Amino acid sequence: MPIIQFDGGSMSKEDKVKLAAKLTEAANSVLPNIPKEAFTVVIKENNPDNIAVGGTLLSDRK
Amino acid sequence: MPIIQFDGGSMSKEDKVKLAAKLTEAANSVLPNIPKEAFTVVIKENNPDNIAVGGTLLSDRK
Amino acid sequence: MPIIQFDGGSMSKEDKVKLAAKLTEAANSVLPNIPKEAFTVVIKENNPDNIAVGGTLLSDRK
Amino acid sequence: MPIIQFDGGSMSKEDKVKLAAKLTEAANSVLPNIPKEAFTVVIKENNPDNIAVGGTLLSDRK
Amino acid sequence: MPIIQFDGGSMSKEDKVKLAAKLTEAANSVLPNIPKEAFTVVIKENNPDNIAVGGTLLSDRK
Amino acid sequence: MPIIQFDGGSMSKEDKVKLAAKLTEAANSVLPNIPKEAFTVVIKENNPDNIAVGGTLLSDRK
Repeated sequence: MPIIQFDGGSMSKEDKVKLAAKLTEAANSVLPNIPKEAFTVVIKENNPDNIAVGGTLLSDRK
Repeated sequence: MPIIQFDGGSMSKEDKVKLAAKLTEAANSVLPNIPKEAFTVVIKENNPDNIAVGGTLLSDRK
Repeated sequence: MPIIQFDGGSMSKEDKVKLAAKLTEAANSVLPNIPKEAFTVVIKENNPDNIAVGGTLLSDRK
Repeated sequence: MPIIQFDGGSMSKEDKVKLAAKLTEAANSVLPNIPKEAFTVVIKENNPDNIAVGGTLLSDRK
Repeated sequence: MPIIQFDGGSMSKEDKVKLAAKLTEAANSVLPNIPKEAFTVVIKENNPDNIAVGGTLLSDRK
Repeated sequence: MPIIQFDGGSMSKEDKVKLAAKLTEAANSVLPNIPKEAFTVVIKENNPDNIAVGGTLLSDRK
């Protein structure tokens, strides 16, 4: 049942395919007793207007 | 103040109405000391490209 | 794959058993195409010092 | 590294700018040992159809 | 109903009191149409063994 | 800024070290434009009494 939630920016379908596969493999290599099929990955895509670092939105940082 | 967050796929308005009502009733029946009005339900709709089980996106599983 | 996260206070094992069963049944009754086995419930128990409503911690509200 | 996630309704860009700055300042004033640059704010905008209080969706409460 | 979740390290009760009050005021000053009483703050305290930046746990970074 | 939250069971410090490193490497290999230092991993350890699959707590499934 482990759940891996990834909060980042927008991503292509191709990158989502790779990200889900690689995060699952990474976690499964550390926790080999948990079958790969038990891992859920949830990818949350966020607008650069909706994330801030140091109090400034990503869309305003460059 | 309990918060019930539901992460699933897209849903019709009608299903959201029912889901919010039923999750709240379910929780309230187990925790009757907490008034129904204190429960918040947050429904997160996710694209099948953004969820993976066993390392494979839901959109690629069939 | 739907994930139901419940953020509340501490709970007895008995209440957790009931809460998990009832939240799952509630969601499954609204979304009957998703097999019951696909639902995950995560119960987060929070200290009343760690939740505030209206800016005041629950532990200070009475 | 503290992460402040804000789950609310839709918001203008201008309000997001202010919200990110003010939440970061507020947290930094309480925890001055953590540099402002270490705080991340994530703003999640939710449709009034996707939030319920007391079992009723916000879009149906008025 | 806005929900402000703060994920940080352990904190004294005194800091939690201030953090909850200040985050709520900050958000309410940007969104004055939402009554202060409608904001919930959830403080999650994490062990430095459970947070990593750049792939290294906070407990191993100094 | 991407944030990777891992919700699983309890883990040794050694496994947390590996998990944080491997999840970060995995994500960075898919998104090489984001510097490794910008990724935060948050590991949430949950009691088997607090997770249910198919409506039954993990602690009651065997």
